[in-house]
Amino acid sequence: MTVAISIDIGGTTTKIGLVTPSGKIIAKNQFDTWKGNSKNAFFNNLFEAIGKLIIDIDFEDIKGIGIDAPSCVPQEGIIKGASNLPLKGEVPIVDILAIKYKKEVYLCNDANAAALGEGKFGNAKGMSNFVVLTLGTGLGAGIIVNNEVLTGQSGLSGEMGHITAIRNGRQCGCGRKGCLETYTSATGIKRNFLAQLAESNLPSSLENLPLASLTTKKIGKAAKEGDENAKKAFEYGGKILGEHLADFVHLFEPEAIVLAGGVAQVGELLFTPTINALFDNLLPNYINNIQVLPSALGENEAALLGASTLVFQ
Amino acid sequence: MTVAISIDIGGTTTKIGLVTPSGKIIAKNQFDTWKGNSKNAFFNNLFEAIGKLIIDIDFEDIKGIGIDAPSCVPQEGIIKGASNLPLKGEVPIVDILAIKYKKEVYLCNDANAAALGEGKFGNAKGMSNFVVLTLGTGLGAGIIVNNEVLTGQSGLSGEMGHITAIRNGRQCGCGRKGCLETYTSATGIKRNFLAQLAESNLPSSLENLPLASLTTKKIGKAAKEGDENAKKAFEYGGKILGEHLADFVHLFEPEAIVLAGGVAQVGELLFTPTINALFDNLLPNYINNIQVLPSALGENEAALLGASTLVFQ
Repeated sequence: MTVAISIDIGGTTTKIGLVTPSGKIIAKNQFDTWKGNSKNAFFNNLFEAIGKLIIDIDFEDIKGIGIDAPSCVPQEGIIKGASNLPLKGEVPIVDILAIKYKKEVYLCNDANAAALGEGKFGNAKGMSNFVVLTLGTGLGAGIIVNNEVLTGQSGLSGEMGHITAIRNGRQCGCGRKGCLETYTSATGIKRNFLAQLAESNLPSSLENLPLASLTTKKIGKAAKEGDENAKKAFEYGGKILGEHLADFVHLFEPEAIVLAGGVAQVGELLFTPTINALFDNLLPNYINNIQVLPSALGENEAALLGASTLVFQ
Repeated sequence: MTVAISIDIGGTTTKIGLVTPSGKIIAKNQFDTWKGNSKNAFFNNLFEAIGKLIIDIDFEDIKGIGIDAPSCVPQEGIIKGASNLPLKGEVPIVDILAIKYKKEVYLCNDANAAALGEGKFGNAKGMSNFVVLTLGTGLGAGIIVNNEVLTGQSGLSGEMGHITAIRNGRQCGCGRKGCLETYTSATGIKRNFLAQLAESNLPSSLENLPLASLTTKKIGKAAKEGDENAKKAFEYGGKILGEHLADFVHLFEPEAIVLAGGVAQVGELLFTPTINALFDNLLPNYINNIQVLPSALGENEAALLGASTLVFQ
């Protein structure tokens, strides 16, 4: 049986899977991306994890290797300037793996891999024009135009997390202010929650938690249990997101927007204000042609499956 | 010699040209789009204008007909809901011309035609990813992604004039508020000028003009002659435009942004604040990879040339 080795390099965990052309993950493995805290350690951990996966299969059955990572330059086959990986400088990951395994190796960025996965196996299956937003620590967008990943001239397109949502708004990690991800990513939702506490003076069920341990998941749970501040954190994030998705739709006219990542797991609490704000801000002739969908693949598998499609394309 | 009949249908004037594959306009003609004020009159005027152009050439040399118009659905070959044309309802212009002239007929929207023209014969020649903004009465965008026009799922993409520049800002003709074109199109510049007069209380060299006769051209001339209010009208429009072009670049990562249309004719007065605001708002790794260019083809020819490329593609 033909398989791809699929590698999803994340800021916390690196996942490896053996994936069939039809999107079945027949075996998987993972390791802490930062274990050993060096480039050498990372590659040793990666080789070891791959080794355990492929030990029982026929080497000839491996069609190739698909990798996704943040901060990569697919055309050059390198990971570059990845502040949240133990891979500093320029790392020619495609060459490293090609030499080691004597297979074709493909690379794309994590948001694009999620879009490829969702398009081939998920809720955007059969669509030619769509976007997958990954609402995680940051906000990434994988944009598919006429069945192809939008890359821009050098792979830097889709930086939707850093479009300016509110001029002179919240300080962003990128050095600029008011970026969309400061309102709508996991960290954005946490900031919305703090701003809401400051604004409302209402009590919150999360008051006794240390601030550092606040997570979107906890805020989501509190919101579902009726905590008004927590609900408003998602309402506000969804409103800002929907407003800017309207601009996106006016530019791209996609068939669907898929919301993926941890923040989207909260479901209706985010989707309802997002969809309301989107439709409130769309020109009328766009309204019947756009869907907002959840990911069908779950946070952990969209990118892994998407990276495998690079091998089988 | 092979030629295309190229037809650029505008809200004021409809232009027709005979264009060679290398982009030479060997003959042209035009008529007032509203002359006769009916669909029938429009087609009679069009047939007459075409007739005069082709009378001296061999009918066999006409490869086909390329048309651009606002408010069209290229996939269906129709003009639809065009509020600024005497073509109400749905007008199957492709069929009408194909039956009349027994030639292949191609249709695209005006902003996309300008982008095709600029990409084939103008300042974006040789580029695979770029956008042409037409700053006229409104603001249209023709977006080229990997050498192809971005159409979206049904030809509605590129509505950059209606992305929200300022939330709850100026009333737009579309019924929404704060659209980019209310600040940066010809009418936007005029509104900037009025707002600036209200704000500054400085005298203006245009004070003796009737308000209704104020045009971007006159404001541009006044600005070049040192009128502070007029200068500020372009500065403000350029600033708003540049800020939102930064968002655009973060999404698309094009090689160039071409500014065309009447407003762009003013030159530096618009380009300088636009470029400054763009670069002030870009993430650092985008800064060396983007150019802002004027149109090389002039207001009147980009779309006409672009429509001809549909025939020769």
